[in-house]
Amino acid sequence: MARPGLILKLSCPDQSGIVAKISGYVSGYSGNLVEFAQFTDKLSGRFFARLEIETGGLEVDVDDFIEGFGTLGRALHAVWHFRRLPYRMRTAVLVTKTDHCLREILWRAELGEMPVEITSVIGNRDTCRSIAEQAGLPFHRIEMEGERKKQGFTEIRELLEAQGVELVVLARFMQILPDDFCRAFDGRILNIHHSFLPAFIGANPYRQAYERGVKLIGATCHYVTGELDAGPIVEQQVERVQHFHSPQDLVRLGRDCERGALARGIRYHVNDRTIIDGHRAIVFPD
Amino acid sequence: MARPGLILKLSCPDQSGIVAKISGYVSGYSGNLVEFAQFTDKLSGRFFARLEIETGGLEVDVDDFIEGFGTLGRALHAVWHFRRLPYRMRTAVLVTKTDHCLREILWRAELGEMPVEITSVIGNRDTCRSIAEQAGLPFHRIEMEGERKKQGFTEIRELLEAQGVELVVLARFMQILPDDFCRAFDGRILNIHHSFLPAFIGANPYRQAYERGVKLIGATCHYVTGELDAGPIVEQQVERVQHFHSPQDLVRLGRDCERGALARGIRYHVNDRTIIDGHRAIVFPD
Amino acid sequence: MARPGLILKLSCPDQSGIVAKISGYVSGYSGNLVEFAQFTDKLSGRFFARLEIETGGLEVDVDDFIEGFGTLGRALHAVWHFRRLPYRMRTAVLVTKTDHCLREILWRAELGEMPVEITSVIGNRDTCRSIAEQAGLPFHRIEMEGERKKQGFTEIRELLEAQGVELVVLARFMQILPDDFCRAFDGRILNIHHSFLPAFIGANPYRQAYERGVKLIGATCHYVTGELDAGPIVEQQVERVQHFHSPQDLVRLGRDCERGALARGIRYHVNDRTIIDGHRAIVFPD
Amino acid sequence: MARPGLILKLSCPDQSGIVAKISGYVSGYSGNLVEFAQFTDKLSGRFFARLEIETGGLEVDVDDFIEGFGTLGRALHAVWHFRRLPYRMRTAVLVTKTDHCLREILWRAELGEMPVEITSVIGNRDTCRSIAEQAGLPFHRIEMEGERKKQGFTEIRELLEAQGVELVVLARFMQILPDDFCRAFDGRILNIHHSFLPAFIGANPYRQAYERGVKLIGATCHYVTGELDAGPIVEQQVERVQHFHSPQDLVRLGRDCERGALARGIRYHVNDRTIIDGHRAIVFPD
Repeated sequence: MARPGLILKLSCPDQSGIVAKISGYVSGYSGNLVEFAQFTDKLSGRFFARLEIETGGLEVDVDDFIEGFGTLGRALHAVWHFRRLPYRMRTAVLVTKTDHCLREILWRAELGEMPVEITSVIGNRDTCRSIAEQAGLPFHRIEMEGERKKQGFTEIRELLEAQGVELVVLARFMQILPDDFCRAFDGRILNIHHSFLPAFIGANPYRQAYERGVKLIGATCHYVTGELDAGPIVEQQVERVQHFHSPQDLVRLGRDCERGALARGIRYHVNDRTIIDGHRAIVFPD
Repeated sequence: MARPGLILKLSCPDQSGIVAKISGYVSGYSGNLVEFAQFTDKLSGRFFARLEIETGGLEVDVDDFIEGFGTLGRALHAVWHFRRLPYRMRTAVLVTKTDHCLREILWRAELGEMPVEITSVIGNRDTCRSIAEQAGLPFHRIEMEGERKKQGFTEIRELLEAQGVELVVLARFMQILPDDFCRAFDGRILNIHHSFLPAFIGANPYRQAYERGVKLIGATCHYVTGELDAGPIVEQQVERVQHFHSPQDLVRLGRDCERGALARGIRYHVNDRTIIDGHRAIVFPD
Repeated sequence: MARPGLILKLSCPDQSGIVAKISGYVSGYSGNLVEFAQFTDKLSGRFFARLEIETGGLEVDVDDFIEGFGTLGRALHAVWHFRRLPYRMRTAVLVTKTDHCLREILWRAELGEMPVEITSVIGNRDTCRSIAEQAGLPFHRIEMEGERKKQGFTEIRELLEAQGVELVVLARFMQILPDDFCRAFDGRILNIHHSFLPAFIGANPYRQAYERGVKLIGATCHYVTGELDAGPIVEQQVERVQHFHSPQDLVRLGRDCERGALARGIRYHVNDRTIIDGHRAIVFPD
Repeated sequence: MARPGLILKLSCPDQSGIVAKISGYVSGYSGNLVEFAQFTDKLSGRFFARLEIETGGLEVDVDDFIEGFGTLGRALHAVWHFRRLPYRMRTAVLVTKTDHCLREILWRAELGEMPVEITSVIGNRDTCRSIAEQAGLPFHRIEMEGERKKQGFTEIRELLEAQGVELVVLARFMQILPDDFCRAFDGRILNIHHSFLPAFIGANPYRQAYERGVKLIGATCHYVTGELDAGPIVEQQVERVQHFHSPQDLVRLGRDCERGALARGIRYHVNDRTIIDGHRAIVFPD
């Protein structure tokens, strides 16, 4: 959306008339609703919505419009969030050695496919430094071997906080995040796991896939929680494989799934198209 | 939807406040909006919506609710349509020799995947008679060879009208419908074409696909218009093929695309999930 | 292959010159090799091959050709198997309540997509009786509730043996086979599991998939071993799902994966296109 | 293949005993056949094969082995080609403005996914210069506007010949190649067309796809012949789209198909996994 606008994400217990109330609030002040995606989870009785509102013709000040919504939001017992458009989300990318996911993010960001502002690339190896620097981005090498691990995570958190990072992308970052880190960035860390979760949790998923003899491999983009590879799934992609594919072939073919799933996942997140609901993620695709 | 309800399909020129007006009408009489899918076509400036409304708690009579909507519909310069739920659409299936699409429809109808009431199976060959009759359905053989063709179509139309048919499914019916037939059932004839349209229009698409050496074959479910294989597309499915697949193999592999695409297309249509917009079909999937 | 012929499946330790030796044996007696698929597993050092041979021009008797191959086979330390064509494999289908996989098998068998001769349908419920009988097949109801389970499996084995069954298809048969049963039919039992294995082993995989919030569901056709859902995988298919799909929707969408994966798996097996290699299955697709 | 070796591609009229003769020749001189892919086209009566041979243990000189094969090749009336491994194919990439295909090629070449040596990037615009130069590759700007077109193509041919280019990749090069150019590099030019051919030949395929309302878009990697977008297809990929995707969205989603199909096509070609057979391409995938 090039014109000034707002995205509203909201979830609340379901009740009759929610759509009318919310859209009525918007049109009551002459906001122009250009997209209204909603979903009622009949099993849990919760309502979820994402609205995209052009505010050019709004009769009140945007701040006032946002503040005024609080009365309705509270009446609906809702959790909600407004985002002003245009917006680019401050994003840090964490890497180890493998660079294909990092390259994909940089490329799509440059193309404008993802409205992100990459604050820096952070690595526990130096392998990706040149890619970051060639793209004009600061690269921070954090030493995390052995006893340095705890200190390393502290340093990463300090960097993220100093840079005002809103989204942390684990682009094949081969370290398990400590619980307090996960909690501090709850709902704001996206990981790419190189398997079709929940199959092949943990290390060496392509080797596991080879040994199991699967006929499809995949990759999963998910939010990170304290439980390994168990956070809400945002996107998954698969690729057909055959018996003649070695574990190395699976790595090669899997890279395309990883790039694709991670890129879509980030795009959905930064465009506020995801709502986390317990173990699941609502995704309104575009 | 097991409980009594309504589906409302609507399209109109876009303007500010449409969602609020429509949802406000529903909630104003205590209708419960369980699904509200909408789409604004920014290129054409039209708004499209599909609403699913539980009417159990409606404060007015359902007929009156429907009638009262007219005032709003006309004010929006809309085209709209209400359907009472539960509903099973009266559907005729036209066949020639090939039976896999017919079998698929019968099977899914029996499973409850498609809310259709099949009025009869009509064939210009006798091949599918036993399948229809085994399913307890009347089978009408219409002779259409050579000079009989025009008369044949007249007889089919008489059958469809006598049986109050609302949807005509061409389940590999190998005859080109005359223009007046297409017009009489405009927007109510679904065909399955055995290629990935617009590639391989016309006869023998698998042979054409073989000769062109494509690496994917497909099938297309579309509304029938007077122009051959050019009506609005509802669903397409593809299957990967290789050089060693003969034209006969393509026929075999293509059957699965045909069954899948046609079944989805019918399901979308009978659940009022499609809106025809010129050469294109809006489809709100489920 | 309409003309008389042979399929030869073979596996042996890899060594130089195997292809020349085998194809040399065939051409030495004027057999016509119409397909030669081979695979060398570099990790395990084993060689696998499937040959399709037209025997119309063979200079020796087919029996003699088969017997004479033994000298070469033993020299290669091979495991091998000849099948005379045309061939229809004697196949029993085991079911419980769900009938879509059974219907799919019957339909494809009738179309000639799978060269099987279905000996009977065996069920621990009566639900599928009418489908079997309408297709002209004997249906055996085996009581397996509670204490009857062990006796039930004995009765099934007796049936399979009496009918000379070569392939047992578990078409949504909701009973875990005892170890001795698995061993007795080792490599000759195909199951369809309604998940993308190894994700969601065991009961209620669609419910598990819903709760985990996956974005793709799948089905897996695999050989049955003593270990639950862990046998060699022959075919897998997936379908994209979204947050709005209820567990019932996943069941509906999953049916298409199940039908497709099982049908392909059976077709590969009965055409001798699979070779089991430990936990994995080599599949030479067609 | 890291060890020294050969790839042999061959096609000839089918006859009995071909596999035995060819593999016999290889094993007769103690070549180790590590892969033997073959295909007999029953419709045309032609035989196609690709062999991968380890030559470490060869009892004769490799040159002599290659020369000696001629006797057999001529006896089979074959067309054949040997390639020594390891090999990197000298490849030029032609571009206009769009850079995603170029980036993909550079990235995969760097990763070692494609054994190519990129000789230069040639553009009729300057847009991709910095990408090429950042990768350490020469960039040649060729002016082709209006009257310069003919001269431009002459200059390109001179560049290709001077650089000893074996493969020309049109990576979204928006110029139609003249006939003599196509003939000069027959079977050695790969193009990526941004549609699922043969649908949407020519300009603006995404716009055409939008207007036709297709539910899947695609991209096609094919050899270039004198006939526009009609050369043998090597690889195709598709992506599902919906009514809400604008032509710009199709461009965005299509980029992933284009990158994927082109990368696979190049990989197949440079690994000698393709054999052109009239309008079709045999592809032995890996």
